[in-house]
Amino acid sequence: MTDNNLYLKQMSIDVEKARQSASFRIQDMNKLLLNNSYDAHQKAKKIAESEPVFDKFPMHFKNRTEQLAHSLKMAKRLIELEEEHHLNQQEFNALVLYVDMLNPLSLHYSAFMSVIQAQGTPEQIKKWYDPAKRLAIIGCYAQTELSHGSNVAGLKTVALFDEKTDEFIIHTPDLTAAKWWIGGLGVVSTHAVVQAQLVIANKSYGPHLFIVPIRSPIDHKPLPGIIVGDIGPKAYGGFATMDNGFAIFDHVRIPRDNMLMKFAKVTREGKYVAPVHDKLSYGGMVKLRVDIFADAGLKLAKAATITTRYCTVRRQFGPNLETPVIEYSSVQHRLMPLISIAYGIYITSKDLYGQFEALTKQLEVGEAQSLPEVHATSCALKSWGTRRSTDGIEECRKAMGGHGYSIFSGVADMFATFVPSNTYEGDNYVLSQQVARFLLKQLASQKQVYSSAAYVKEDVKLLPIKSHEQLLDPNVQLALFKARSARLVRQLAQQLQVGHSWSEVSVECWDINFAHAEYLVVHSMIQKAQQVKSTPLGDVLKRLTDLFCLHYLATSATFLATSTVSPLELVKIKQAYHQTVLSIAKDAIPLTDAFGFSDRQLNSALGRYDGRAYEALWEAVQKNPINHDEAQRAQLTKLVFDILHRRDNLSYIQAAKL
Amino acid sequence: MTDNNLYLKQMSIDVEKARQSASFRIQDMNKLLLNNSYDAHQKAKKIAESEPVFDKFPMHFKNRTEQLAHSLKMAKRLIELEEEHHLNQQEFNALVLYVDMLNPLSLHYSAFMSVIQAQGTPEQIKKWYDPAKRLAIIGCYAQTELSHGSNVAGLKTVALFDEKTDEFIIHTPDLTAAKWWIGGLGVVSTHAVVQAQLVIANKSYGPHLFIVPIRSPIDHKPLPGIIVGDIGPKAYGGFATMDNGFAIFDHVRIPRDNMLMKFAKVTREGKYVAPVHDKLSYGGMVKLRVDIFADAGLKLAKAATITTRYCTVRRQFGPNLETPVIEYSSVQHRLMPLISIAYGIYITSKDLYGQFEALTKQLEVGEAQSLPEVHATSCALKSWGTRRSTDGIEECRKAMGGHGYSIFSGVADMFATFVPSNTYEGDNYVLSQQVARFLLKQLASQKQVYSSAAYVKEDVKLLPIKSHEQLLDPNVQLALFKARSARLVRQLAQQLQVGHSWSEVSVECWDINFAHAEYLVVHSMIQKAQQVKSTPLGDVLKRLTDLFCLHYLATSATFLATSTVSPLELVKIKQAYHQTVLSIAKDAIPLTDAFGFSDRQLNSALGRYDGRAYEALWEAVQKNPINHDEAQRAQLTKLVFDILHRRDNLSYIQAAKL
Repeated sequence: MTDNNLYLKQMSIDVEKARQSASFRIQDMNKLLLNNSYDAHQKAKKIAESEPVFDKFPMHFKNRTEQLAHSLKMAKRLIELEEEHHLNQQEFNALVLYVDMLNPLSLHYSAFMSVIQAQGTPEQIKKWYDPAKRLAIIGCYAQTELSHGSNVAGLKTVALFDEKTDEFIIHTPDLTAAKWWIGGLGVVSTHAVVQAQLVIANKSYGPHLFIVPIRSPIDHKPLPGIIVGDIGPKAYGGFATMDNGFAIFDHVRIPRDNMLMKFAKVTREGKYVAPVHDKLSYGGMVKLRVDIFADAGLKLAKAATITTRYCTVRRQFGPNLETPVIEYSSVQHRLMPLISIAYGIYITSKDLYGQFEALTKQLEVGEAQSLPEVHATSCALKSWGTRRSTDGIEECRKAMGGHGYSIFSGVADMFATFVPSNTYEGDNYVLSQQVARFLLKQLASQKQVYSSAAYVKEDVKLLPIKSHEQLLDPNVQLALFKARSARLVRQLAQQLQVGHSWSEVSVECWDINFAHAEYLVVHSMIQKAQQVKSTPLGDVLKRLTDLFCLHYLATSATFLATSTVSPLELVKIKQAYHQTVLSIAKDAIPLTDAFGFSDRQLNSALGRYDGRAYEALWEAVQKNPINHDEAQRAQLTKLVFDILHRRDNLSYIQAAKL
Repeated sequence: MTDNNLYLKQMSIDVEKARQSASFRIQDMNKLLLNNSYDAHQKAKKIAESEPVFDKFPMHFKNRTEQLAHSLKMAKRLIELEEEHHLNQQEFNALVLYVDMLNPLSLHYSAFMSVIQAQGTPEQIKKWYDPAKRLAIIGCYAQTELSHGSNVAGLKTVALFDEKTDEFIIHTPDLTAAKWWIGGLGVVSTHAVVQAQLVIANKSYGPHLFIVPIRSPIDHKPLPGIIVGDIGPKAYGGFATMDNGFAIFDHVRIPRDNMLMKFAKVTREGKYVAPVHDKLSYGGMVKLRVDIFADAGLKLAKAATITTRYCTVRRQFGPNLETPVIEYSSVQHRLMPLISIAYGIYITSKDLYGQFEALTKQLEVGEAQSLPEVHATSCALKSWGTRRSTDGIEECRKAMGGHGYSIFSGVADMFATFVPSNTYEGDNYVLSQQVARFLLKQLASQKQVYSSAAYVKEDVKLLPIKSHEQLLDPNVQLALFKARSARLVRQLAQQLQVGHSWSEVSVECWDINFAHAEYLVVHSMIQKAQQVKSTPLGDVLKRLTDLFCLHYLATSATFLATSTVSPLELVKIKQAYHQTVLSIAKDAIPLTDAFGFSDRQLNSALGRYDGRAYEALWEAVQKNPINHDEAQRAQLTKLVFDILHRRDNLSYIQAAKL
């Protein structure tokens, strides 16, 4: 067998050729995408590339406990590197993004510490935040219960105030109220912020937050009255590195001071002091959705990078060397829109972060004018982005044919771990109702409305689509996306007016959420393309924006259903769409290179930068322990013999010389 | 904590109430669905329910090697039970369906043995089929290569005839030609049927089949010149119980007699004798797709059963006990159409099996008139069914909220293991082109066309849709599905006429495939509903058919794009759709009960027959080894201490009394 064959050589040549023919400078695009965090990403990557513990390849062969163990080692190394290299927050964030793997400490930082900081008094912050920062305690955030998720008001865990001892009694009244799914609780956490119904003298004051010690930080044993453990494996092998846990509290006593009292308070005498501004704590929830939306872009970008590279080097059918599959329209039409969607999310999430920062500044001075808008925008983009991204990742996997189903494709892990984002931090269907309500409110408002939703009241002018040029006009594009969404909102208003209940229109809310989110992305993309219009990136960003628009115009039923587009216009749209797909396909390798992922970050045999996918698959397979671990082989061979040598088979085999 | 709470009690009551209010007899429907295999299924279930090795629950905590080992034990037990209970073929098939788990012997039966039987001479059948039947050898079917999948003609493995020794030399010319993905080859098989390019005296005769010994059936060691092993884990943890393998052949010599010679032959003198009928061997490929289509229904039916039960007992929001989520339209609109699709596949696959049996009889007497039609029908239904089923299974999982992401939901496994069916036995996109070609051929034909495609030439009359009744008229329903598909086919013909290439129209082929398949299913469902019209099942089957039709009419963009439906008519369609969804929702529990799955078959905490989902989750979690295996716990705790007790943290913790 000679490996120097034509096909294998051609693979590296193909991917390099595609790279060389870029219509723009790849590094410039990478800088534009990463914005002001470019330097931090470079620094983080340089540090991380040489760390053996960040190599995710061995995870493929580990069982759940081994994966959890490995992720704890990763977490420890992250902490050490932060100290060793004196990383600032942006650099540390970039390092965490480089590793891109959940670990049992993820929520210690993003939920436990941030909730204490946001909702604790200065004394509480000193008492809990400081030890948390030095990791003398490890915490989690315990809200969800076995049978209570989306409906926070319906939580059943209680915190009874005992005036005699100045304590709260944390109690789980029945199995349905067991805390469940709590990340970090299953194996690792010493403490939890627990959402519980505050009860004083038989009166309930709704859910509040309490710091509850779970395990001793000294011997790590569960504390008295607490049953705690890991809830088991998750779908698709996802979240294997996270110890989602359960906890049941049997009259567990904590000091009164353990209630987070920046806003609401309970006095020594058992008097409840209501918060002045109850919405000031909403910032954290918005932040989680903003982060998830950005993550949707990151994950889709990785899948698109891998798939673009493999489809560039993979050949099927055709003469001689066969045809690279990326030249097939079925591959292009699945893959190119996903590249434009990933760009759309990157660009839009930058705008969303900007809006969130402005909101944070408002909240800090006790104001909340833009909260409804940023809330609705983040809900719309979170539900749209997570759905498009996870559907897109799985479509990428399918577009790679048979090998897409190998774990070494690297794409399945992303779907497995990101797909629950459709459900957590607000189930997408639940969020879509909030988006629809917001837009209906704008439609009904007599006052000035939020700018992102102003279009629902606009009298959008649509001219018949007769030419290709029209479809590439940003004003026409915006008008089409505005008109569709506005019409859907008005249809919903009518349905509610004639007596439909909210539970009857949840499919309509879903359509509205998607239409609104796609309008928001088109808006951000057009703005960005115009900003860089006169630079070398202007042309390709314009084409990506066109592709995003044309893809949805050509494929989304709601444009036709709302008569925003007619079947006749659809013919023109499809022609323009086909052309734009072709134009982006020529830049597909550079566009995905520009996301800037290293081979190690992608952890994919198929998506190698140098195109040597088949050699990488071969190398990966050699490391499979089933092929060389003697104990495993002996165990399996014995079982094969139990079948093969049944009864008199062995003498039969020998006689027949099989 | 008391577990006798209202919520938990209500769960069993809810599911039982839904069962009692069935509009039909559940057992009658089960008989209708299983048709003439009802008794075999009952017998198989009775045997299997008490077999400990068929309990799949422990698989959740096993690593890949342990899962493979367990599946070998299952395989052995299947063989023993067949013998112990003298099962006939139908009963054994029912038993295999009960277990519903791939094992390393699956392809020994479905591919290795059946290929030998179909393509071997009587002497070859005697020599290989008989030992295979008694499992003195275990075989696999080695076609796919590392870089050659869909394109069989492009396979690179060669079989050179050596006239001197009367042998074939099987050789892998380079890495890209390594056999790859071969089920059963990785760990278990002793023999393989290998597809290789037959070469005689430097002349190539295309791919032919050869029996190649791989491992000694005595000591199970790989034979000289063969590198063989397991290709590693698969996406989503799927196919963990199957040892997909690779093999590289270095000039491996086999006797000339090892070429399967029922059709093509090579004589002692090296003369190639071409087959008389080259299509007579196509029956096997069609059979695989027919089986996959039926399996799509089985898998979707299981997911729908689990989800329907859990959504009936799960409550969120609303007053008092909160509202069962199955009453939300967003849940109904996702779930009810999936139930109708599962019924559609069950019913249509019975018709497809009938067509396949008729074809088999033709092929046996050397005729093949209906081959093109059955081929196209099976391609269309396979690609449509696998896509709808796997998308549907994942939608079921999402519809269950947070717990859908637990491995104990039981739904993720189905997606993980069934999703590659979109790719194998013909990638869906590749198959859709064959469907489109078939339909185009019918359109262009001057002769009589196949009945399943006759509509492409029909002048279908569509009257404006003005009433609800119209939409429930089977003739109107059929006309709409015919018209859409016919229009798409004619549009494609035009595109090709004006010079578009086939690679430019693959998205159009995809739409045609789906439109044609949905027409076929509507046709089968209408027929079945009319057959049982006067029985107690008539009403509900009619409603299921209506739902299937209305679901696609309301949601598929191609009805609007082809002007088969106008935006104005869509309003009427949606009203009818909403009503039909509601009517099916009332029968959702009985309709899914009627699939007849036992709790053990579903292996789902959430989908328990008695509705006790939360208690089952609690029990499942208690079995998680991370919670009780002392060695695993010690390993993890040590790593936690590596973080928690860093530097002087331990004394800090003690001083601060944390």
